[in-house]
Amino acid sequence: MDGMEFFQLSAGKWRSQRTTHHLAFRRAETGESEINVATLAADHPQVVEICRLHQVEPSKAAGGALVSWQGTMAWDRSEEENHTGSTVMVIVPDQDNPRQGRLLRERGYAEIVPVAGRYLIDDEDALVLLTEYETMSSEERFCFVSSDVRMRTSTVKRFGGFSTASLCVETRIGSDLDDERRETLVPQQAQDVLAVRQFQSSLGW
Amino acid sequence: MDGMEFFQLSAGKWRSQRTTHHLAFRRAETGESEINVATLAADHPQVVEICRLHQVEPSKAAGGALVSWQGTMAWDRSEEENHTGSTVMVIVPDQDNPRQGRLLRERGYAEIVPVAGRYLIDDEDALVLLTEYETMSSEERFCFVSSDVRMRTSTVKRFGGFSTASLCVETRIGSDLDDERRETLVPQQAQDVLAVRQFQSSLGW
Repeated sequence: MDGMEFFQLSAGKWRSQRTTHHLAFRRAETGESEINVATLAADHPQVVEICRLHQVEPSKAAGGALVSWQGTMAWDRSEEENHTGSTVMVIVPDQDNPRQGRLLRERGYAEIVPVAGRYLIDDEDALVLLTEYETMSSEERFCFVSSDVRMRTSTVKRFGGFSTASLCVETRIGSDLDDERRETLVPQQAQDVLAVRQFQSSLGW
Repeated sequence: MDGMEFFQLSAGKWRSQRTTHHLAFRRAETGESEINVATLAADHPQVVEICRLHQVEPSKAAGGALVSWQGTMAWDRSEEENHTGSTVMVIVPDQDNPRQGRLLRERGYAEIVPVAGRYLIDDEDALVLLTEYETMSSEERFCFVSSDVRMRTSTVKRFGGFSTASLCVETRIGSDLDDERRETLVPQQAQDVLAVRQFQSSLGW
């Protein structure tokens, strides 16, 4: 598994359910989003442009991904506070190891200097993205539970100290799993939910 | 980092905040718990007993941990549905690799046959526990964000299919981080929370 293979598995439309735990605040915030991922070939104009922005030789890029999203978070204060956006990421593998390398992004939030970062595929074939900004940094870990379910955990540090941890459970839109998700449970599902809750308790909460 | 070192870093009292996403149900459930972890030496009577239960030579155990917890989940239907319990886990490293091996547990929920499982320390020094039951299985991943903050993500599969994903953020009781956690935010914290929310949006939701 290398970076571009991971992006290819991620291609498509996803329904993402996120929960964020703020360290300072003993409550969790939830939200939902639709996310669209499209892979970009190594010679795609946006890939080339981002390489140039980061002064990286475009021929060293393996390719990239265009990620766009539209979401809502429970603590949004107004209609204007929507979470719509898109970003392009480019993978530049290390010469000696295609399972890790540089991750180039577009211009980030409120920063003049384009954001750069690192990626690696860990020994469980999960994709880890490490992104640095001037005052914040994040570590995100993506893993596929199945081809239609992706799990994403991330931590954000602000001024060097841990700020938040998030979990996103993402189901591929149009898959059976996605269709089965409901706002209210049918009896069989309710039984499953209860069984799993009791099971979890026996593992040590 | 080996299994017992990980247990030693985990020793102490933790305040755990959990969110569970049920795949069937597009809502997340939250809850809190206090968790106490005490390490057990390889020759501790409970370690020896669990080895015998699993027909493992007690001298092969590296040690264990006693985990006890008291928690509440938001969807608990009554006062009686409390999540209090304890369990003992024992580490039996593979002969050729102390970073992985068998994980022996006490008798599990509603099962006659004692539960066994595997553990491994992955290349990011996170502890991964894989536990099998007759109709359910779980994969839990524990990692330390700092010595006073531990993050735990887990997935449960029922009848082979993905059922839930959970995130626990755990802060060491008595640490500064734990003291700073509040039910309502002071202005400085509110600023931090907003900054991080905006940042997260720029990463691709």
